[in-house]
Amino acid sequence: MTAGRVVFVGAGPGEADLITLRGARRLAEADVVLVDALTDPALRAMAPQARWIDVGKRGYGAATRQAAIDAMLIAQARAHRLVVRLKGGDPSLFGRLEEELQALAAAGIACEVVPGVTAALAAAADTRRPLTRRGSGRSVSLATAMTRTGALQAGRHADTEVFYMAGRQLGALARALRRAGWPEDTPASVVSRAGWPDRLASDHRLADLAAAALLHGGRPTVVTVGAGAQAVAAVDGPSAAEAGTDGPAAAGAVHGWAHAPAP
Amino acid sequence: MTAGRVVFVGAGPGEADLITLRGARRLAEADVVLVDALTDPALRAMAPQARWIDVGKRGYGAATRQAAIDAMLIAQARAHRLVVRLKGGDPSLFGRLEEELQALAAAGIACEVVPGVTAALAAAADTRRPLTRRGSGRSVSLATAMTRTGALQAGRHADTEVFYMAGRQLGALARALRRAGWPEDTPASVVSRAGWPDRLASDHRLADLAAAALLHGGRPTVVTVGAGAQAVAAVDGPSAAEAGTDGPAAAGAVHGWAHAPAP
Repeated sequence: MTAGRVVFVGAGPGEADLITLRGARRLAEADVVLVDALTDPALRAMAPQARWIDVGKRGYGAATRQAAIDAMLIAQARAHRLVVRLKGGDPSLFGRLEEELQALAAAGIACEVVPGVTAALAAAADTRRPLTRRGSGRSVSLATAMTRTGALQAGRHADTEVFYMAGRQLGALARALRRAGWPEDTPASVVSRAGWPDRLASDHRLADLAAAALLHGGRPTVVTVGAGAQAVAAVDGPSAAEAGTDGPAAAGAVHGWAHAPAP
Repeated sequence: MTAGRVVFVGAGPGEADLITLRGARRLAEADVVLVDALTDPALRAMAPQARWIDVGKRGYGAATRQAAIDAMLIAQARAHRLVVRLKGGDPSLFGRLEEELQALAAAGIACEVVPGVTAALAAAADTRRPLTRRGSGRSVSLATAMTRTGALQAGRHADTEVFYMAGRQLGALARALRRAGWPEDTPASVVSRAGWPDRLASDHRLADLAAAALLHGGRPTVVTVGAGAQAVAAVDGPSAAEAGTDGPAAAGAVHGWAHAPAP
């Protein structure tokens, strides 16, 4: 039989309703869904007809796991009409999409990519802190704090820098940023579980960024540094805090949400 | 009466179904929607109950227009329960969100931000070219090619650089990138109308990037340079082109879609 099609769908970084309408429509048509561990279990309700396969389980090496996912994608596409490969955030950013596209191309299987909301944008939305700012914030850099080999990398490349998967090495990240020329009073906004109801945000300066590890420890964490980390203050009139938006941040200020913001 | 609430919603960069489920839900609850010119008119079907106000019209200066939008947001929030401010792409990236948040904070009006898919991610999805790559593509920079004052800026900041609103100065952008140290054979992927059915993509090297202006002239254009601009090739097996994915790009290759890809 003719092989089916694989659609990579970005689930967004948090709650199920951050997926796009197009992504939800592909899920509703899927025969099989291969899913990572970090996505919201509530997404399953969008594809009750499909067989769901969790490929995010730990316990063996990353390379083995990737080869196993590639092989399973190919096998499922050969047996079904539509296979959805559901990835947290956006598939094109830090999602190992390249490896899976290469394997499918080698097997002669057609594919499509449906984009999604990436964690940096969810963190900016959660904290109401635009990544670009008038005059001072023209460029944004997105990077992981750690390389594949475990080396930490940080520089001064853009007005706003966002680091993914930064939770475990906040002290080292702060030191690397200071070595790269960022002043120690540079604002840093740390958000863990961005896009989820239990998201947590805290405000720091590079000088005290290490302290955020205690607060966010063990949770998926995004760190925004520079222009886009600053709280947006009211221009004249009542304070932002009174208006229900975050006011200018004191160093170390913590914002937690036990529940989603007012619907 | 108590002022209502303003929800900034990212509509995504193209067709209406690139909005998130959460964004669509807010639209369905809105009393008023303030919308930019670039968003898909089909979004109106998601909020037939609301009054739609187009604030994207041209004809007067940017500063006047922004002040008028700020004033209208405040006036509408004071008269209604829920005002949606619908922006193309994601509100936190190149969306002038800061100005509108400041104005609302000054007026004591509560707000929420619902993130969206940004054009760089839609362009990557349309061309099936992940912005991050194994080994060679760890960081991504997002910037506008032009500053507010009309100056062109380009550097070499990340493994993959994406420029928004770059359609009119592709030759100048290529020259600036070469001055910043990018080799003239660096791959560049140009996508206009990313996320729309009539999107158009072409492959270049910096040396011939200027030629893309003819093809994409007058259309909203995203330019991706570096690691993430390279087509993903099959690893062994049949060529990617046979598999329905783009093969390795010849310089100047053009990919057009008269219609949306197979649903």
